[in-house]
Amino acid sequence: MSVKTNEFAALKNVKVNDGFWSKYESIAKDVIIPYQWDALNDNVPDTEPSHAIKNFRIAAGELEGEFGGFLFQDSDVAKWIEAVAYRLVIAPDEELEKRVDEVIDLIGRAQREDGYLDTYYLLKEKGKEFTNFLDCHEMYVAGHMAEGAVAYYEATGKRKLLDIICRFIDLIMEKVGNEEGKLRGYPGHPELELALVRVYKATGEKKYLDFCEYLVNERGKEPNFFQQELEARDFRNAWGGKDKKADTRYCQAHKPIREQKEAVGHSVRAGYLYTGAAHLAAESDDRGLFEACEVLWDNATKKQMYVTGGFGSTVYGEAFTFDYQLPNDLSYTETCAAISFAFFAQKMLMCDVDSKYSDVLERILYNGSISGMALDGKHFFYTNPLEVWDEQNKKAPAYRHNKVKRPGWFGCACCPPNLARMITSLGNYIYSSDENTVYTHLYIGSDAKVQVGENTVIIKQKSLMPWEGKSEFTLSGGEYTFAVRVPGWADKFTLKLNGEEVKAEIKKGYAYITRSWTDGDVLSAEMPLEVKLIEANPQVRADAGKAAICRGPVVYCLESKDNGDRLSSIRIAEDARFRCEKDEELFPGSISIFAKALKKKAWDTGDLYRAFTASYEEIEIKAIPYAFWGNRDDNREMAVWVRV
Amino acid sequence: MSVKTNEFAALKNVKVNDGFWSKYESIAKDVIIPYQWDALNDNVPDTEPSHAIKNFRIAAGELEGEFGGFLFQDSDVAKWIEAVAYRLVIAPDEELEKRVDEVIDLIGRAQREDGYLDTYYLLKEKGKEFTNFLDCHEMYVAGHMAEGAVAYYEATGKRKLLDIICRFIDLIMEKVGNEEGKLRGYPGHPELELALVRVYKATGEKKYLDFCEYLVNERGKEPNFFQQELEARDFRNAWGGKDKKADTRYCQAHKPIREQKEAVGHSVRAGYLYTGAAHLAAESDDRGLFEACEVLWDNATKKQMYVTGGFGSTVYGEAFTFDYQLPNDLSYTETCAAISFAFFAQKMLMCDVDSKYSDVLERILYNGSISGMALDGKHFFYTNPLEVWDEQNKKAPAYRHNKVKRPGWFGCACCPPNLARMITSLGNYIYSSDENTVYTHLYIGSDAKVQVGENTVIIKQKSLMPWEGKSEFTLSGGEYTFAVRVPGWADKFTLKLNGEEVKAEIKKGYAYITRSWTDGDVLSAEMPLEVKLIEANPQVRADAGKAAICRGPVVYCLESKDNGDRLSSIRIAEDARFRCEKDEELFPGSISIFAKALKKKAWDTGDLYRAFTASYEEIEIKAIPYAFWGNRDDNREMAVWVRV
Repeated sequence: MSVKTNEFAALKNVKVNDGFWSKYESIAKDVIIPYQWDALNDNVPDTEPSHAIKNFRIAAGELEGEFGGFLFQDSDVAKWIEAVAYRLVIAPDEELEKRVDEVIDLIGRAQREDGYLDTYYLLKEKGKEFTNFLDCHEMYVAGHMAEGAVAYYEATGKRKLLDIICRFIDLIMEKVGNEEGKLRGYPGHPELELALVRVYKATGEKKYLDFCEYLVNERGKEPNFFQQELEARDFRNAWGGKDKKADTRYCQAHKPIREQKEAVGHSVRAGYLYTGAAHLAAESDDRGLFEACEVLWDNATKKQMYVTGGFGSTVYGEAFTFDYQLPNDLSYTETCAAISFAFFAQKMLMCDVDSKYSDVLERILYNGSISGMALDGKHFFYTNPLEVWDEQNKKAPAYRHNKVKRPGWFGCACCPPNLARMITSLGNYIYSSDENTVYTHLYIGSDAKVQVGENTVIIKQKSLMPWEGKSEFTLSGGEYTFAVRVPGWADKFTLKLNGEEVKAEIKKGYAYITRSWTDGDVLSAEMPLEVKLIEANPQVRADAGKAAICRGPVVYCLESKDNGDRLSSIRIAEDARFRCEKDEELFPGSISIFAKALKKKAWDTGDLYRAFTASYEEIEIKAIPYAFWGNRDDNREMAVWVRV
Repeated sequence: MSVKTNEFAALKNVKVNDGFWSKYESIAKDVIIPYQWDALNDNVPDTEPSHAIKNFRIAAGELEGEFGGFLFQDSDVAKWIEAVAYRLVIAPDEELEKRVDEVIDLIGRAQREDGYLDTYYLLKEKGKEFTNFLDCHEMYVAGHMAEGAVAYYEATGKRKLLDIICRFIDLIMEKVGNEEGKLRGYPGHPELELALVRVYKATGEKKYLDFCEYLVNERGKEPNFFQQELEARDFRNAWGGKDKKADTRYCQAHKPIREQKEAVGHSVRAGYLYTGAAHLAAESDDRGLFEACEVLWDNATKKQMYVTGGFGSTVYGEAFTFDYQLPNDLSYTETCAAISFAFFAQKMLMCDVDSKYSDVLERILYNGSISGMALDGKHFFYTNPLEVWDEQNKKAPAYRHNKVKRPGWFGCACCPPNLARMITSLGNYIYSSDENTVYTHLYIGSDAKVQVGENTVIIKQKSLMPWEGKSEFTLSGGEYTFAVRVPGWADKFTLKLNGEEVKAEIKKGYAYITRSWTDGDVLSAEMPLEVKLIEANPQVRADAGKAAICRGPVVYCLESKDNGDRLSSIRIAEDARFRCEKDEELFPGSISIFAKALKKKAWDTGDLYRAFTASYEEIEIKAIPYAFWGNRDDNREMAVWVRV
């Protein structure tokens, strides 16, 4: 059997039409994308200028000035183009498309004659191209530009940007590779790998897949390229200092990926590398590589994932630490890291339809990714802690990366455009298919056309998720298998065909129904959403004696705004009774959860320590979906894990 | 009424003879002091060389070479001399005294003609003296040398070192002060202040007290001296970089001490500054300054002190953070910080006999200070966390300052000699007196002569503390008041005179008995030691739902060595019954505490999260005194706070 077993339906064939996600889609469409355009053009008041468009103008010789922003600033433009491309699929917009064409023209004018295209090197470090793959991000930037190019090509059929970026990749391939005389390098920040598979799929040119294979397989071999490169630079790093040793673990180059057993280092780099590797495994039919990816998936999601679908336990290197070390208030859990693992999940699902991937995908989508965005679409978290104490963030330096309110656009603006592209391309994550079967991975209302062998299956999914556990599929006729995910959180799962319960075959968390379908058949999936107290494996020291309130895929949290300060003083009973109530203050349709709990009384003396006394008051707690936290003023604390 | 109300009995008049402390005294005497001598002379294998003695030899022109060690390396020699001085009072030793005399001669030869004496500047930064009080430690070094000089003078009557250091201080006073033409500076690291009061007391020369007064009062005035000094250095710091702004909060110079309401910044600097200020307040009869010290004492001990008597919640700047922020596994709680607050307590007691000072003093002595030392006297903790998970210390960078086993001597060797001098001078903390009263602040077995007006009261204290709550005082005759502390931890406190219960007047935590004493009268103080679960103020988020097991002044902890890994999985009942057992594995006379508890069972699946289930096993936990933790191999976890 091939490694790849199924293919996701293209975005253009899946229109999201969902009570929950359409709202996010409009925020992305109507707020983030225009706002980001302003940001890229330095037109957002009271915000650090991005310099991103300006850099291209300077590189094109149309403006005087110096390079500004981070060394990977170009990628913000690329991610904006990518998000716009998806958005144009969802809702065509001539004016917007014209604007992108102009940007692409500008990028073309900025490109050097030999194809080189990274304004950091074009402007600031002329002549030093290809000398610092470890710290600098030229391949990363190329990767993002390639993703934007492929998306724009798929959305519009226009291949100018694709041609531009292929010229740059061709140049990179001239310089880098395992042939005699080339640099045996690879990117410090993975991203080009996953982009190369997309370029291969868009162009059909196998050399891009081969180069991806080289990059993935070369990484981490001995003698270590990054160490050699560092020595060749006389140990100089990109920030004016010197390093004795290349931190290869930080960028997952400490050993070949096939020998890696644990997710380590910078979490976003990890997520991008694994995504590229998994996609490569699928497209090059490399079972060994797929199995290596599975080992890394299992480690990351079964030992190092926050209950919100967040990844990265430490601000040092924005990184993984080690198994079961998941501090809630120190967590880094970058928005981009969560998103990168959604990408990874999708690629793994192409090879193995197992709900262990799609359950995590769903967990990321409803929780640790969109928590990065305020409901106004204009404020963003870079990091998504599971517990905050505002004063601590401000006054205790170890916590200062965490905030209690989302700031506006920020200088290192990787997360907002990443959210924009994830949300606008959500249609790409719902359905996949092979010769016989349609797989439904997510319960998201949508209209889709999915190719199953010769048959184009038309699916209309109506979903009440995540507020009610019911999705209804109206299907077109034909002989095919329809498979839907049985979520890991569901205690009961019932399928009804035209109102009659049907039995399905269950494999790896998916329910399969094979039959001859008639146009208009209605299959409904019902999975009651119960409020559950979830506990962490006792190896997770940080969550001992605590539980997270969850309802279906939604993880809840307490805010001091609703529950008073000292959330740590609150204890809920292990058998607490929960009441769910529609509460649309923050989000249409949202449900808040209420329960009786005990809260330790404040002391009426100034003592710091005294003999233990049981002095509690009974309170009613209110929990809101974690994704919506931090959207109100005067909120000083938040906690996902509550004492039981 | 004067600010100073009583005076501590001099060390030479108090001989410690105690089941607990005499053991520490012999470790200090027989192990630390000789070991430290080897360290100062770079004779400890497998340890970074100290360079401390060598620096003086080079400065004296008797050796070729360069300055080595930290810029405050001289202070290690000073602290060794101070510890040896106390040790010579306890047990004279001609050979050792001769060695100190030789070192003092060497220091004399290293001193510059004008009196200058700091080998860092003499050797490494010639000509830059007095240009960087913020980062560099010349006044700090002078302070330690002065403390050593006074101690050695008091121990031996020899004043050579005192003369040497007075010449240096005189030079400093020529350059620094608020007279026209002088630098209006003060030390970045306080220490000279407290030393100056001691020099004043030893020499009787008021100019030293006046200079102390200047240093304390000038500190933090606007315009800020450190900022001006930084600008005058073109913003260069001592480490080759530049700083835009002087971190005045870090060194308690953000405002005048009389306006400071919270303990902030580097905890050891804070403790030394407050000690100097409190002693100054006492000797200069400055009530306003005493009251400022009381505000800082109350803030530090009632809002920012760990239950172990540790201070400093963050590794960033080894510093205080803010009220009630007391993370247990990230704590810094430097050994020196605990010791500095023992100094501070003693000075406050001279002005106000209140058990709020002596209770903390006792807490520090039995817990957060001596925890810094292994029971072999050769291994030391710099930081004293209240919770450790070995793997976390090693693999999660935020925790790497904490260790599960004490290393040997270290480069920045401030803590070991600080412990040595504290332990060898313990006799100085037990008794104080005024015209009418003897105050007993600590229950430590000792033979003392205390001056009460005209009467020299002879006291023989026999104590079973901290293992049994009983001390017996055999007293000499005369008309005087004998006061003993009623510990805050004691629920019952009984005084018996020659076997008969007596009533005492209780004031501010001290029991006063005024009578005409007959030679040989025996007063016994009985205060049953009960195991107690202590809880923290609910404002302390880190300790919510947890309790510390304490018995009298001793704070206990669990080690995984005794209780298995995952200490966080252990929960004791709020009304648990405790069993105490003599357990001399670690320390003679020590008592371990046992109790039934529940421990969450390990999961038999590889899940990370699942629905909450109550699955506990009953275990018997064993708790040992916190001070003795980390003395055994194969111990991976320790916790003071246990879930209840």
